[in-house]
Amino acid sequence: MEKIRVGVLGATGNVGQQFISMLTDHPWFELTTLAASERSAGKKYKDAAKWRVERELPAGVAEQVIVPVDVKEVDADIVFSALPADLAYTIEADFAKAGFIVASNASSYRMFPDVPLLIPEVNPEHLGLIDVQRDMRKWDGCIITNPNCSTITMVTSLCALTGFGLKNIQVATMQAVSGAGYDGVPSMAIIDNLIPYIPKEEQKMETETLKLLGEFDGSQVVNADINVSASCNRVAVMDGHTEALWVQMADDPTPEEVKDAFLRFDTDLHDLPTEPEKVIIVRDEEDRPQPRMDRNAGGGMSVSVGRIREGIRYIVVGITPFEVQLEQVY
Amino acid sequence: MEKIRVGVLGATGNVGQQFISMLTDHPWFELTTLAASERSAGKKYKDAAKWRVERELPAGVAEQVIVPVDVKEVDADIVFSALPADLAYTIEADFAKAGFIVASNASSYRMFPDVPLLIPEVNPEHLGLIDVQRDMRKWDGCIITNPNCSTITMVTSLCALTGFGLKNIQVATMQAVSGAGYDGVPSMAIIDNLIPYIPKEEQKMETETLKLLGEFDGSQVVNADINVSASCNRVAVMDGHTEALWVQMADDPTPEEVKDAFLRFDTDLHDLPTEPEKVIIVRDEEDRPQPRMDRNAGGGMSVSVGRIREGIRYIVVGITPFEVQLEQVY
Amino acid sequence: MEKIRVGVLGATGNVGQQFISMLTDHPWFELTTLAASERSAGKKYKDAAKWRVERELPAGVAEQVIVPVDVKEVDADIVFSALPADLAYTIEADFAKAGFIVASNASSYRMFPDVPLLIPEVNPEHLGLIDVQRDMRKWDGCIITNPNCSTITMVTSLCALTGFGLKNIQVATMQAVSGAGYDGVPSMAIIDNLIPYIPKEEQKMETETLKLLGEFDGSQVVNADINVSASCNRVAVMDGHTEALWVQMADDPTPEEVKDAFLRFDTDLHDLPTEPEKVIIVRDEEDRPQPRMDRNAGGGMSVSVGRIREGIRYIVVGITPFEVQLEQVY
Amino acid sequence: MEKIRVGVLGATGNVGQQFISMLTDHPWFELTTLAASERSAGKKYKDAAKWRVERELPAGVAEQVIVPVDVKEVDADIVFSALPADLAYTIEADFAKAGFIVASNASSYRMFPDVPLLIPEVNPEHLGLIDVQRDMRKWDGCIITNPNCSTITMVTSLCALTGFGLKNIQVATMQAVSGAGYDGVPSMAIIDNLIPYIPKEEQKMETETLKLLGEFDGSQVVNADINVSASCNRVAVMDGHTEALWVQMADDPTPEEVKDAFLRFDTDLHDLPTEPEKVIIVRDEEDRPQPRMDRNAGGGMSVSVGRIREGIRYIVVGITPFEVQLEQVY
Repeated sequence: MEKIRVGVLGATGNVGQQFISMLTDHPWFELTTLAASERSAGKKYKDAAKWRVERELPAGVAEQVIVPVDVKEVDADIVFSALPADLAYTIEADFAKAGFIVASNASSYRMFPDVPLLIPEVNPEHLGLIDVQRDMRKWDGCIITNPNCSTITMVTSLCALTGFGLKNIQVATMQAVSGAGYDGVPSMAIIDNLIPYIPKEEQKMETETLKLLGEFDGSQVVNADINVSASCNRVAVMDGHTEALWVQMADDPTPEEVKDAFLRFDTDLHDLPTEPEKVIIVRDEEDRPQPRMDRNAGGGMSVSVGRIREGIRYIVVGITPFEVQLEQVY
Repeated sequence: MEKIRVGVLGATGNVGQQFISMLTDHPWFELTTLAASERSAGKKYKDAAKWRVERELPAGVAEQVIVPVDVKEVDADIVFSALPADLAYTIEADFAKAGFIVASNASSYRMFPDVPLLIPEVNPEHLGLIDVQRDMRKWDGCIITNPNCSTITMVTSLCALTGFGLKNIQVATMQAVSGAGYDGVPSMAIIDNLIPYIPKEEQKMETETLKLLGEFDGSQVVNADINVSASCNRVAVMDGHTEALWVQMADDPTPEEVKDAFLRFDTDLHDLPTEPEKVIIVRDEEDRPQPRMDRNAGGGMSVSVGRIREGIRYIVVGITPFEVQLEQVY
Repeated sequence: MEKIRVGVLGATGNVGQQFISMLTDHPWFELTTLAASERSAGKKYKDAAKWRVERELPAGVAEQVIVPVDVKEVDADIVFSALPADLAYTIEADFAKAGFIVASNASSYRMFPDVPLLIPEVNPEHLGLIDVQRDMRKWDGCIITNPNCSTITMVTSLCALTGFGLKNIQVATMQAVSGAGYDGVPSMAIIDNLIPYIPKEEQKMETETLKLLGEFDGSQVVNADINVSASCNRVAVMDGHTEALWVQMADDPTPEEVKDAFLRFDTDLHDLPTEPEKVIIVRDEEDRPQPRMDRNAGGGMSVSVGRIREGIRYIVVGITPFEVQLEQVY
Repeated sequence: MEKIRVGVLGATGNVGQQFISMLTDHPWFELTTLAASERSAGKKYKDAAKWRVERELPAGVAEQVIVPVDVKEVDADIVFSALPADLAYTIEADFAKAGFIVASNASSYRMFPDVPLLIPEVNPEHLGLIDVQRDMRKWDGCIITNPNCSTITMVTSLCALTGFGLKNIQVATMQAVSGAGYDGVPSMAIIDNLIPYIPKEEQKMETETLKLLGEFDGSQVVNADINVSASCNRVAVMDGHTEALWVQMADDPTPEEVKDAFLRFDTDLHDLPTEPEKVIIVRDEEDRPQPRMDRNAGGGMSVSVGRIREGIRYIVVGITPFEVQLEQVY
């Protein structure tokens, strides 16, 4: 199979580096273009970016010359956008108009009614919105978005419980510093401390969830009729968000029934190269899941649940999976 | 005023060291006796204990000779017990029988119906149980207990809201490692990690709260008719428990009304030497309270609340105050 | 005694906040002026600065209006400069020219031959350079500087050993993140990690030490004839630099003789309000000094030494004392 | 090739778990026996050990029944010993006498003149001591030992520099908590702190190095004529020891010559399955090596050096490689 040619917008930042790391040696994708701000354009990647991913900077990427974030400069079919939200609104539209498939990690378009907010394991049918979007906006390309990272972890677990009739969800998060970007959380803020506040995070969890679990009726997504109340905290963990949930459901299932639902949960995505064997991993140990032990489960693509108790209360740990999203588009 | 002669049982451990640190130079108390296990008895305190409190080991204490934990060896009116729960059950009874007032940090007697479980700022009238206890057990002394540390922080804040009719409480804690004792949490367990489980902690928060907020009718404490659901986590913080609460109340107050209730909350204990000016401190900053910034508020005797939102949700930070409890006895 | 009127240049940053915290309620100083960049000037301090010191923002300071960093706007006798090095060079000269005594924490002027680089406990006689400076530059005021924080800790301890004939010094530092400023070290850089590099730090330790231990001959400071080789590391500690030293001395003293020299070390500064009883504290425990336990010794003004071994090797822990410097000027 | 049958002594502890993790699916070894204390013997491994390695407990190991640490119970050709030093002295001798090859991580036998202290990349010829040992002790088996973990990292780097004539070495370590075992460093000891002392560690680095770099003359190892002075510190890092070295050499090489020696260093062990491509990796970045970024280089079998400066000073980061040692025996 011929590889799909992909580019990264905002290639030098933290999320951009993650994209590069995951796209290198990917069986489906060929990373053709690295685009970044004017300050970086024209330089070799190794000279423009301070590489901070544990995996060594791939040799090919190091020597690649960065182009400006401009539709005329990017030679790819799909672009992964790691742009900041303020720039993303205009630029991603330019790319979609110019025929690119834009897979965005920015929050700018997430809540637009004609833009899919996608967790491939949760709501693949929402991709039907792409036709709506193209019709309405007269774009040759399109924009699809992924949710906020703490939302992805929570909703992936909730998806297994929709059969019980989700009603009220309360979630207290203990989120890793990586979610704020490399310079996002100063060490002086977090050593021997935690921050019980993440700007806009609670609102994102409370609104994105309704769309993600909503129903696509062929022309629009009808929000799920549930209530989410979030309390978001930043803790001294590098990677992996931990979330303590209370989930009230119409059928009032027992912890054992909830556990069974987690165990039974499966997807149709097993032909995707990065799809893990189990999307939801159930831990039976009394003190799991833990972020350092469980964040890399399923190659980082699984969420791990545990401590399922009366309430229903449980703990879920996960990190943000980027790339399956795009595999799913095809 | 002549000083009250006090002793510490279990003087060499972590809690014992805290007791010593707080009792030294106290205006009301004179620390006469340090009691510990056979292994330590007969040694000078400085030779038996590895002092780990930031404040330097008081010179007088360093040279004091430790006695066995035996009623015949302890020369004091009040003993503060930092004994482990398994030993506390028998030994504290021996001391109460022998006429000592036993102020215990152990969990052994907390839930006995004739033993006061006390937060002086919350339920001072429960001290009336002492008479019941003495009548029933034919003791000259008595046992009074303090709650679990995470319970104290939560209930001190809830106490200001009882007027609204407390119904359901959900609490996710992010607790400091100090609560587990010096050797309680290995660094390998908590660096770049958190543990979403603390043995027996959720149960303690869920049961102790009902007693603390219960009504003393002259002969017994009638548990409060509320429901508490806890999810307890250990995080990489030295001192100061942070708790994210959802509080459902009959009167359905607004966040502003809840804030006012916190601001108005006061006690009759201002003649006690360690009582802070404000038991509940309200932080208006969007990212406070934080454990490192707020744990020492009011000399460590205050709890700090903030982020009061619809729900009602709020954050509370506090550490365990020991000594006011005993001041209150007099 | 009438208080000395003092101002802070660069009042909103991390070092500026430290200055404010220490100058508030100081027995000698009255904080009259807070100066900061144009962005902050005209605002109340509480609106311009995000206060990050544990001690609450003093009420008087909170309401004070910030002025621009301009000699005409500052009403004070002494200004403490927390300016960044690039701005400090020009601005501090303006202030000195205009008659202010400038006590600078910036590195710009430290190595100028006519500017005192001062640790009051170490080289108070270097203040004689002020006359040289005024003569040469025709300034009514003057500039005096304090050394780099890791230098202060090391040299304060070395000062006790000069009698043995210092020759070669090797020092490996483990420095706190606070030394880099609030945003200086991202949490992603330091959680489960350390950074074996601090820009320019080794050079500062190697050169400043020679000047600090040099001799003032009435017109200049003749550098000490010693050799310093530093290897500087940043570790996950909030405050308090820890340094492992090897000190080769002409007299080849024993560890016991070195310890005696530390114990005997004293200064003439005991009439200064913040001068601690002991500038050098000797710890006998095998695992001390430690930054969290010892950084606040002597109100933060002492350094703590320990583990004095053959070699001579020892460990020293300290934080940066700012204010004694100025008390010393008078 | 038929697999070599191996066992682990002390299989439930931290080092034992590392052995198991590395021996599972190893191309040369078949893990036949797990031996542990009486308390664990007779239980399934999953019931006796709290598995703490990130890699999931291998299914086969989980169900395996633990045997006592007894020569009659162990069915293997080689045993890897993770026994505590006090037990290792007697038990390892029993196994060697009974014909087992004992590869020990304990310190008990390291400094015996007839026992190889081995870093395969450094002193493979020391295995010649096995014949001496067998002759002298009349053992059918033998004991070989690996050095202390901080010694391995340092000496692996020093080995590349022996051609310059090593004379004096000063080393300040910043060691990970994992080196002390799972319960070795309480979190209360290391959060916002470091410990400038590790029991016996400095002595081990100073003596083991002389043996490791010594010459085997056919009957004994003649210690290297160098001097090592160590200052060992524990820091808040999970894995990976960082060491700041000063190395004085007879030939007084330049930093560039030292770097070339590191780059040229190679071994004859490339047919071993876990031998990395480069044993010594040279980092050119000004702030590398760092423990979190470089500890897993070469599958954890490489050490990473950087910041090679006049002095000669440099930084080295490494973790402990266990298994190559045994591959080398064959």
